[in-house]
Amino acid sequence: MAMKPYLKRGHAVIERVSLELDGGRHRPKAVVGEAVPVSADIFRDGPDMLLALVRYQAPSESRWREAPMTFVDNDRWTGDFVPAEIGRYKVTITAFTNHFGTWRRDLSRRVEARQQVDLELEEGAALLERHLKVVRGDERRMLKEAISALRAVPDGPKDGFEDPRIAAALDSRIASIVARHHVRENATTYKPVIEVTVDRERGRVGAWYEFFPRSTGENDRHGTFETAAQLLPVIADMGFDVIYLPPIHPIGTTARKGRNNALVAAPGDVGVPWAIGGPEGGHTALHPQLGTSVEFDDFVVRAQGLGLEIALDFAIQCSPDHPWVKQHPEWFHHRPDGTIKYAENPPKKYQDVYPVNFDTDNREELWRELKAVIDFWISHGVKIFRVDNPHTKPFAFWEWLIESVQKKHPDVIFLAEAFTRPKVMSELAKLGFTQSYTYFTWRNTKWELVEYLNELAHSDMALYFRPNFFTNTQDILHDYLQTGGPPAFKVRLCLAALLSPTYGIYSGFEFFENVAREPGSEEYLHSEKYELRPRAWGSTDSLAPYITRINQIRRKNPSLSTLTNLRWHGTDRDQVLAFSKASPGAEPILVVVNLNPFHWEECTVSLDLGALGLDEARPFEVHDLLTDTSYSWSGPHNYVRLDPSVEPAHVFAVRR
Amino acid sequence: MAMKPYLKRGHAVIERVSLELDGGRHRPKAVVGEAVPVSADIFRDGPDMLLALVRYQAPSESRWREAPMTFVDNDRWTGDFVPAEIGRYKVTITAFTNHFGTWRRDLSRRVEARQQVDLELEEGAALLERHLKVVRGDERRMLKEAISALRAVPDGPKDGFEDPRIAAALDSRIASIVARHHVRENATTYKPVIEVTVDRERGRVGAWYEFFPRSTGENDRHGTFETAAQLLPVIADMGFDVIYLPPIHPIGTTARKGRNNALVAAPGDVGVPWAIGGPEGGHTALHPQLGTSVEFDDFVVRAQGLGLEIALDFAIQCSPDHPWVKQHPEWFHHRPDGTIKYAENPPKKYQDVYPVNFDTDNREELWRELKAVIDFWISHGVKIFRVDNPHTKPFAFWEWLIESVQKKHPDVIFLAEAFTRPKVMSELAKLGFTQSYTYFTWRNTKWELVEYLNELAHSDMALYFRPNFFTNTQDILHDYLQTGGPPAFKVRLCLAALLSPTYGIYSGFEFFENVAREPGSEEYLHSEKYELRPRAWGSTDSLAPYITRINQIRRKNPSLSTLTNLRWHGTDRDQVLAFSKASPGAEPILVVVNLNPFHWEECTVSLDLGALGLDEARPFEVHDLLTDTSYSWSGPHNYVRLDPSVEPAHVFAVRR
Repeated sequence: MAMKPYLKRGHAVIERVSLELDGGRHRPKAVVGEAVPVSADIFRDGPDMLLALVRYQAPSESRWREAPMTFVDNDRWTGDFVPAEIGRYKVTITAFTNHFGTWRRDLSRRVEARQQVDLELEEGAALLERHLKVVRGDERRMLKEAISALRAVPDGPKDGFEDPRIAAALDSRIASIVARHHVRENATTYKPVIEVTVDRERGRVGAWYEFFPRSTGENDRHGTFETAAQLLPVIADMGFDVIYLPPIHPIGTTARKGRNNALVAAPGDVGVPWAIGGPEGGHTALHPQLGTSVEFDDFVVRAQGLGLEIALDFAIQCSPDHPWVKQHPEWFHHRPDGTIKYAENPPKKYQDVYPVNFDTDNREELWRELKAVIDFWISHGVKIFRVDNPHTKPFAFWEWLIESVQKKHPDVIFLAEAFTRPKVMSELAKLGFTQSYTYFTWRNTKWELVEYLNELAHSDMALYFRPNFFTNTQDILHDYLQTGGPPAFKVRLCLAALLSPTYGIYSGFEFFENVAREPGSEEYLHSEKYELRPRAWGSTDSLAPYITRINQIRRKNPSLSTLTNLRWHGTDRDQVLAFSKASPGAEPILVVVNLNPFHWEECTVSLDLGALGLDEARPFEVHDLLTDTSYSWSGPHNYVRLDPSVEPAHVFAVRR
Repeated sequence: MAMKPYLKRGHAVIERVSLELDGGRHRPKAVVGEAVPVSADIFRDGPDMLLALVRYQAPSESRWREAPMTFVDNDRWTGDFVPAEIGRYKVTITAFTNHFGTWRRDLSRRVEARQQVDLELEEGAALLERHLKVVRGDERRMLKEAISALRAVPDGPKDGFEDPRIAAALDSRIASIVARHHVRENATTYKPVIEVTVDRERGRVGAWYEFFPRSTGENDRHGTFETAAQLLPVIADMGFDVIYLPPIHPIGTTARKGRNNALVAAPGDVGVPWAIGGPEGGHTALHPQLGTSVEFDDFVVRAQGLGLEIALDFAIQCSPDHPWVKQHPEWFHHRPDGTIKYAENPPKKYQDVYPVNFDTDNREELWRELKAVIDFWISHGVKIFRVDNPHTKPFAFWEWLIESVQKKHPDVIFLAEAFTRPKVMSELAKLGFTQSYTYFTWRNTKWELVEYLNELAHSDMALYFRPNFFTNTQDILHDYLQTGGPPAFKVRLCLAALLSPTYGIYSGFEFFENVAREPGSEEYLHSEKYELRPRAWGSTDSLAPYITRINQIRRKNPSLSTLTNLRWHGTDRDQVLAFSKASPGAEPILVVVNLNPFHWEECTVSLDLGALGLDEARPFEVHDLLTDTSYSWSGPHNYVRLDPSVEPAHVFAVRR
């Protein structure tokens, strides 16, 4: 058996690296400017001590930078690095024997046991000599002095630590010079190198607002990019960062659905924006009633001027009138009778939409055309794509598409709109989706929220799955909102915006729209999917001021930009949820929410004081950022009463 | 970006394969003849169904065998395979779309919704036609008939499931023919292939007995292989499988330790067997007072004749008189004064032993010489090695040594005697040690036992770490045995032998030897490490009958040969531990132990009836295999009283 690779291997072992996902087959995610923690089991055979370093390489650099790791417990070490640019970082760990540290530790033990150490002192001097070749200047001079001191002939018997040779040997300044300028012999470097996707900040943090531009017209007229642009300042004033537009392309007329999903459209019915494509074009065309390409570009620029980014919908499906149907019939499924197969989820049928057959022999051309769609909109200033039902298209396609696009445009963000099984949703995130829709709308009780958030924030999902908590969507009006009245809207907004660094609302939420198509349905009555829904944007019966306040709190408090810092606090009522987020150098935020929209609740909140950086013995102030009211609290147990008809939640800044 | 690999990839994803250890960098363990479970997350994009198979390749075969996997829940699948030979197996998983199953599921849904399905039936016929190329004989005939039935012109309108075409389509016999003879298109196969070390049964199951041959002489004479051989029938009668002998090599005289670890030996002191080597030779020589090579070979053969295997100690260290010290001074550490460094664990010193310097430049020759030692004893019929302190030698050396040895002799077993930090002990097991010493001696309370056994049996350690529970060793006499009297010895024997498939005792245990060198010490007074300890082997004041009974129970009940089947049962006393083991086709064994050696305990045992295959409603019999007494129990809650002065444990066969 080949002996060489074994003979040459270092003593150190590095295992269970926290950043490694599926044995290195997938990349974890990070954002620019924020420390990326790296932990690992690091140990060696025998009693010798180790040194360990995180090594990382920026996408634009060829050199590797290093950051020291520290020992935690039970052979676990930790360190971190701060990525300075977006793109794909390489990360590994290196570990090697700390000969001087080992010698110094053993010398202490020998001296404590009053053993003779003359030979050990010469061994230490020889060790220090090896460091002379890597140390310069003052530090080199100090090292030389230490070597001389170790070798000095003692002027008489001195006891243990009083021996000047031993004092020189144990001098902590010498230890730190040697640790800084270590001689790296026989180092072990973790393989394979781990790749990390570093996104811009918006990849992880942002407030999203969804609206249909076609609903912004006045007097029942079809909206345009111009009328939609008039809404932008309102949205910006509420504190949103991203505007998500459902498809803005031509809509098919063949098998068009009518209002409330009627099988046959009435004259004048506007159709479903996701039935993409008509004689005017497909995925790179604009709905003629919305406006021209120039008007769209103007809309994007006006949004940018207000600090808003536009996210477009990317729905890979076609109306029967889409140009691809004629140009590329081989991209679709054909029935034995020669017809093209429309979308189905047996027994449900979607006659106005043809799914694309990704198993087509001509898939290379299909994939290229789809990438061309993304590239087209990037060239029009769009950098965020909300992808419709990605789980019904091949995983391999998404991995290729996102990698190909981000190779040239690492700032492009993809949001996966997949509501499906947990592992399928996770896989899309692993394959490259920047953010993901979640089960949040269906998590309404304390137990459900705690369990789900623990999975997102405290399992390995935190490495790769970034939640985007939408309170509602054009498809999902949860029973909690249907029945809970305005307090329910406040509760869900607080939870979405304060639990998750990225969250969103679909327009109408601020006006408490809550009427379902029928009992038991999560569909809106008069769903905007099938008709125009003009809104009284200037109405004062609106949650807008509350939303504005919440978004201000989010922007001012950096601890709300992180998910993994989420900590729960005890309450003695199942209806009351308490959680906090704390970040170094910022005031911790403590949120207490009454999940019962119908009735006041009072309870004792039992704080995890350590999570808030608080001292058991000293009183502290909690300042409600929603109402500008302060309370003086003390110790872990404090009384809270929340009346949903007044305020269902406290959002406290904790002041030590 | 290269598109090809993405375009060619299958739809299925396979992740989190249960057998994969550290991303494939280490091998899990199995034994011949026992099913190896393989689970994984398996799913695909879109709504189509999958089929999945475990694929495995025996070391002597070039073809891959396959076993079907079944869906469990939440995209988790499971299957298994039974290795038929020892050596290194290759294992992977393959998954692919189940087109016919998907079509059949959707057809049912359509028919239930009373939809028109003429086109679907033609699609199904076309799917079945694709299977004709892989099906022969009667099955092919049945398939052809089904295709005709699907395409038959109906003789009148029939409703849904009564339509003979639909009955033919949903015929379960057709579904199973198609599943057996699947057409495997665009399959995903898990990479990298997982390697599994398959050992002989003794790798996992066995009862060990340790004794010093030198203590078997009569009238204070030094024992020999001949006197030791006279003890073999006694040990075989007690039901042991393996005899472990401490080093049997010449012992150094330089710096020899005296009785009770005295720094200076008195004349006639026999020295420590681990101070290996003298003028007579080193690791391949025999202690001249024990006997000749021929006598050793005879001892091995006589053991084999009694169904006993000999395990030798492999301690890589030398007395100052070992031939290697002169032949290879470069294999040792040298001090600045030119002396060779003896073993130390500062401030402790072991002057009679030189450790080997594995960092020597001449390490290749060193490694080869050490392997030659193992090969030498293999040539003398030894197939089990208990390795002394492997954690103080390089991990890389062990990985190389064990792989090299097992490549030629896959039946050789290595037991790691490492009592050190958990991750270091785990690493040795991952690198190839067949079995490992454990923390068992220091786990005496219920909480400690449950926590530790859960780690061994129910964490990923179960994949690679096989415990060998020694009740005592020449180095470890736990306080529990020092103070608990004979009941303590029974308790610890029950726990070791019934919790762990492999366990052992060090001789003297059966005679309740319990005197420590001094209070607070775990060393034996008059430790056999430093002097002869002749024993009254025929004494009737012995645990031998109890040990014999326990070993009989172990051999008769296959459920005790497995660790992962361990289940806990509730008791309302902290002093009483209850656990069971059940295996398919065997009577479950239920053990209830009073851990308090000083006092009787009574309690209610609350059984997990499901774990015992019992029915809540039906009474059952528990038959104590130690006392041949039966009790009739019913339901989960049953009364138990255990008096340690009579019997501290019940070992029940559970009879349904």
